[in-house]
Amino acid sequence: MIVVMAKDSTADNLRQVEQRIAAHGLRTQVNRGVERIVVGVVGAIPPDLKDEMELQPGVAEVIRITKPYKLASIEFHPERSVVMVGDVMVGGPEPVVMAGPCSVEDEEQMVSTARAVKAAGAGILRGGAYKPRTSPYSFRGMGLDGLKLLKLAQQETGMPIITEVMTPGDVDTVAQYSDVLQIGARNMQNYNLLDAVGEIDKPVMVKRGLSASYEEWLLAAEYVMAGGNTKVMLCERGIRAFEHYTRFTMDVAAIPVIKRLSHLPIIADPSHSTGKWHLVTPVALAAIAAGAHGLLIEVHPNPDIAKCDGPQSLTFENFSKLMDQVRAVSAALAQ
Amino acid sequence: MIVVMAKDSTADNLRQVEQRIAAHGLRTQVNRGVERIVVGVVGAIPPDLKDEMELQPGVAEVIRITKPYKLASIEFHPERSVVMVGDVMVGGPEPVVMAGPCSVEDEEQMVSTARAVKAAGAGILRGGAYKPRTSPYSFRGMGLDGLKLLKLAQQETGMPIITEVMTPGDVDTVAQYSDVLQIGARNMQNYNLLDAVGEIDKPVMVKRGLSASYEEWLLAAEYVMAGGNTKVMLCERGIRAFEHYTRFTMDVAAIPVIKRLSHLPIIADPSHSTGKWHLVTPVALAAIAAGAHGLLIEVHPNPDIAKCDGPQSLTFENFSKLMDQVRAVSAALAQ
Amino acid sequence: MIVVMAKDSTADNLRQVEQRIAAHGLRTQVNRGVERIVVGVVGAIPPDLKDEMELQPGVAEVIRITKPYKLASIEFHPERSVVMVGDVMVGGPEPVVMAGPCSVEDEEQMVSTARAVKAAGAGILRGGAYKPRTSPYSFRGMGLDGLKLLKLAQQETGMPIITEVMTPGDVDTVAQYSDVLQIGARNMQNYNLLDAVGEIDKPVMVKRGLSASYEEWLLAAEYVMAGGNTKVMLCERGIRAFEHYTRFTMDVAAIPVIKRLSHLPIIADPSHSTGKWHLVTPVALAAIAAGAHGLLIEVHPNPDIAKCDGPQSLTFENFSKLMDQVRAVSAALAQ
Amino acid sequence: MIVVMAKDSTADNLRQVEQRIAAHGLRTQVNRGVERIVVGVVGAIPPDLKDEMELQPGVAEVIRITKPYKLASIEFHPERSVVMVGDVMVGGPEPVVMAGPCSVEDEEQMVSTARAVKAAGAGILRGGAYKPRTSPYSFRGMGLDGLKLLKLAQQETGMPIITEVMTPGDVDTVAQYSDVLQIGARNMQNYNLLDAVGEIDKPVMVKRGLSASYEEWLLAAEYVMAGGNTKVMLCERGIRAFEHYTRFTMDVAAIPVIKRLSHLPIIADPSHSTGKWHLVTPVALAAIAAGAHGLLIEVHPNPDIAKCDGPQSLTFENFSKLMDQVRAVSAALAQ
Repeated sequence: MIVVMAKDSTADNLRQVEQRIAAHGLRTQVNRGVERIVVGVVGAIPPDLKDEMELQPGVAEVIRITKPYKLASIEFHPERSVVMVGDVMVGGPEPVVMAGPCSVEDEEQMVSTARAVKAAGAGILRGGAYKPRTSPYSFRGMGLDGLKLLKLAQQETGMPIITEVMTPGDVDTVAQYSDVLQIGARNMQNYNLLDAVGEIDKPVMVKRGLSASYEEWLLAAEYVMAGGNTKVMLCERGIRAFEHYTRFTMDVAAIPVIKRLSHLPIIADPSHSTGKWHLVTPVALAAIAAGAHGLLIEVHPNPDIAKCDGPQSLTFENFSKLMDQVRAVSAALAQ
Repeated sequence: MIVVMAKDSTADNLRQVEQRIAAHGLRTQVNRGVERIVVGVVGAIPPDLKDEMELQPGVAEVIRITKPYKLASIEFHPERSVVMVGDVMVGGPEPVVMAGPCSVEDEEQMVSTARAVKAAGAGILRGGAYKPRTSPYSFRGMGLDGLKLLKLAQQETGMPIITEVMTPGDVDTVAQYSDVLQIGARNMQNYNLLDAVGEIDKPVMVKRGLSASYEEWLLAAEYVMAGGNTKVMLCERGIRAFEHYTRFTMDVAAIPVIKRLSHLPIIADPSHSTGKWHLVTPVALAAIAAGAHGLLIEVHPNPDIAKCDGPQSLTFENFSKLMDQVRAVSAALAQ
Repeated sequence: MIVVMAKDSTADNLRQVEQRIAAHGLRTQVNRGVERIVVGVVGAIPPDLKDEMELQPGVAEVIRITKPYKLASIEFHPERSVVMVGDVMVGGPEPVVMAGPCSVEDEEQMVSTARAVKAAGAGILRGGAYKPRTSPYSFRGMGLDGLKLLKLAQQETGMPIITEVMTPGDVDTVAQYSDVLQIGARNMQNYNLLDAVGEIDKPVMVKRGLSASYEEWLLAAEYVMAGGNTKVMLCERGIRAFEHYTRFTMDVAAIPVIKRLSHLPIIADPSHSTGKWHLVTPVALAAIAAGAHGLLIEVHPNPDIAKCDGPQSLTFENFSKLMDQVRAVSAALAQ
Repeated sequence: MIVVMAKDSTADNLRQVEQRIAAHGLRTQVNRGVERIVVGVVGAIPPDLKDEMELQPGVAEVIRITKPYKLASIEFHPERSVVMVGDVMVGGPEPVVMAGPCSVEDEEQMVSTARAVKAAGAGILRGGAYKPRTSPYSFRGMGLDGLKLLKLAQQETGMPIITEVMTPGDVDTVAQYSDVLQIGARNMQNYNLLDAVGEIDKPVMVKRGLSASYEEWLLAAEYVMAGGNTKVMLCERGIRAFEHYTRFTMDVAAIPVIKRLSHLPIIADPSHSTGKWHLVTPVALAAIAAGAHGLLIEVHPNPDIAKCDGPQSLTFENFSKLMDQVRAVSAALAQ
């Protein structure tokens, strides 16, 4: 349920609304939009709360949200959300490209990649320190040492960092070294992890689960937001279908669908969805043309020896060409 | 297997190669490219045919094609194929938009739609006279009367016509009234129908089956080509996945994949894949950005009363806006 | 809509009901159950027909069927249907096993297999004369010569025959040589073919499409029944999912689901769904335990050289063991 | 890689083999079968280790395991594994039924259900204290209080307990109150959790992820085993497919497939896969007929008010009938 405050309502009116809701044991989240203030009511709503709220002074309207997700819904927050990552606006008019290697490997690799992707126009540096790997015998990331190399690359280039966190016990450490915490596809329904990143004050990117419906995905975002952290962005990274020529099937329609259902920024990951470097650029351009707020792209100084599954990383040169085309398509659509 | 003729080979050399192949009970298809002449050998290849062919005068090279599809493969025909539909080039530098109503309903509807989509820049007029319908009790199309209305709309506007054929017995009639015969997704593995359109001299568009792999889809094209009709184009129209907010899941990566595996033009159908009018434009732009050679778009004077499943048709106005954006994205990529 | 006649209604009452319905341009199908006579009304029902029918003499009740399939629904025909194939009851208390080779190859193969499967307890002989093949270059069946060999095997053993028909033009010929016409998975939405087998007076088995929903599958059966042929049985043969260790994914829950939604007999095909001979027996037993009315099993004198995809046929010996276990499970459940 | 010791090899030979492997920084797991002792080598194998091991005294054979999972593979452990849960053998000749409510709700509910399912023949009591819920606003389980009620029910009935653990931080507590720790489908690739249960000395049941391939599922088991805990069982609980009449699609063929690829016991969950109480019994019987070592069944004193998604629990009476049929099918197959 959301309570829409009247334009001429006072701070006192708002406080009173919040107190009445709290008296029912429910939590609130306030969204101060340009046009209006909206109070989201979180929890199991008693049947007559709507009537009670409508009678409160300063209340313009009370709306039941029929979707199971509330704070993530477009009804609660009709303006598109922008998540600030340092100086970078995610969800604004320009698409933001997050680029870097699959895994952090060493200083030379990280710093050279950071410089190259920054020069080509990437806004955020990616790199995995904790790697979810299908096999227990694969390289599982450098851990804390990897985080330190990410920090170093940040210091060298000024780029904010996005990196994955896999378990609640690592949330504080990862938050200390990075600017956006990524929840991987395989952890999209790791609810304790979602709870944990809901308690911090850093942006979180929730990747879509391998077979997650739009509703389940938005509910994963809702977990984070219900915990108090509203700086959430989503990432379409391909779903599992029957065709295995590509690693996953990029669901490009998810981009306009999410923008219709939710106010949260939506990013696309063509590297993991296709799993083949030669498909990354066309699928990236498709995502931008469909309205994505950004891209997540794997770039490596030498893709053939990248510590990752399959030759899916772009070279610096190909990444630079990709960026040119992203700008061209983005400009064409802005006209 | 393909036999690549030497640059300085003679017409006699080619004739002799064809005769030797025919002597084994096999058929040939000759592809005269700009650079070279290639003879495709169709059928069950005897083990020593390769050796025999390599010794023929005028033969530069003999290559086994390891893919199960041969004539549809990029190996057989390294230049991209262009299919001419009247004056319209499908597979050329400009994307071709095929637009019109789901079903032919009456003269006024067809002629007004034809004029509107032509004015907006569509190259080919679509409309269904024979409709595959999930229920036997649904409207199954106007049949021959519908074909006649399509012909009329063609005479009024000069636009070539694409329409679906559902069964071998209708192939001749449909070919008489139209310029491209469409094989619907549900008939992609109706092999007798594929055989039948393989025997005519008109372009054929093979839509991807609801759960067809890339290989099965290219083999459906191969059926048509093996019958002697090489004017084949493919159409990605969404696959069946677990998410049903959209009717189907547009597999946008299929576009660059098909262009890598095959020389045939690849079209995208955002109307049937999404099933929602408000998703058609972003998904259409995604397909163009991914490199599609064209689009298939449902347009109706009054989408709310269209004889089709769901409100997925665009109005004339929205179609016109779509065309502007298609041109902008296409121009941006051509730079 | 169905019109349920009163227990004491007369033949005249029924005739009058049928005439009134016909006057609306609608068709009827009468189901004479043990308990009651039910008239199914087929076509687009006018809004006030229900009221009109309720006032007719001899009418007990008029029920709108909310499902899109009517004649196939359990509401129209609350008793389970039994389809007689010669003397063999499909849909009765005993499961019926249909066994034989994937493709008819020669007389020796067909006759020896027919004898072996009959001796083991199979009720119906299967064998493909017209084969839907993914590639145009694969063996596509012996055609009419294959039908003749099936007939010969029938004469030798007395077993009724099931075989596939792929196109409307072959329906009469196939009907002449066989006892059950099989509609293959790839043709489940070949509506002209469904129409064609709806016009004959022979049992038809409709296999589930590779990605068909339960509703689409029952609507395919409805096509046949709407044409006047009510001798329809269904066959679950596996759906396409993401795991390709098995050829398809046997949806064993489809068996009790179909029995809840429809009165038609339901058969299971473990050979095509698993694609591996060593999985056939456990999956066959699973289908029987789930309540299937029968099985479709590939058996070959020498599976390694069978003209079919992959080594999925059982040997005579393994088929005989399968039959013993089928009988044991079936008897255990009957207690 | 596995090192098979000769029949007449000595304890010294074995110790030496282990030391040589350890000298390469690799870990070992020893499987003492009836016929032979096998040493599994875990980690990244150097190229010449095979040669080195073959020359060790007492070594009969060295086999590279080509599958990515090693300890879970049938090659490493050719006899079927039995996991003892208290006195209950999971993986032995008799199927083991684990039954109880979805969520622990109160003492009366737990104790009455425990008594009822024990009386009907269940071997292990299930009940959820920590519940993975799609929405943050749903009941997420009683937590520690729920564990205490499970313990109480165990004391009343003597039944061992299976319950889910969702996060590494809860593993020790859950292990203290239960006999089998369940890893839910949504956590199948929560690698930190798999690591954590790999370090304890209690049986673990790994449910298949919603869209996990057989290989990914066995690799999840391998994570637990690579940590040192070999008491692992698997549970097929349905995969996500396109049909949503059932909650998930029970992949019954997974049962014989897993038995062919692995030595671990395989359980089936018809309650969560079907999501409809009336499908539970036929699908349960199908699983048993396909060779499952056990079942996981939701039972509730009053299914209509169960704190769970959908009316999928069986009543005591229906559970008792299910058990009778399970015994009948199991006995029929044992003959």
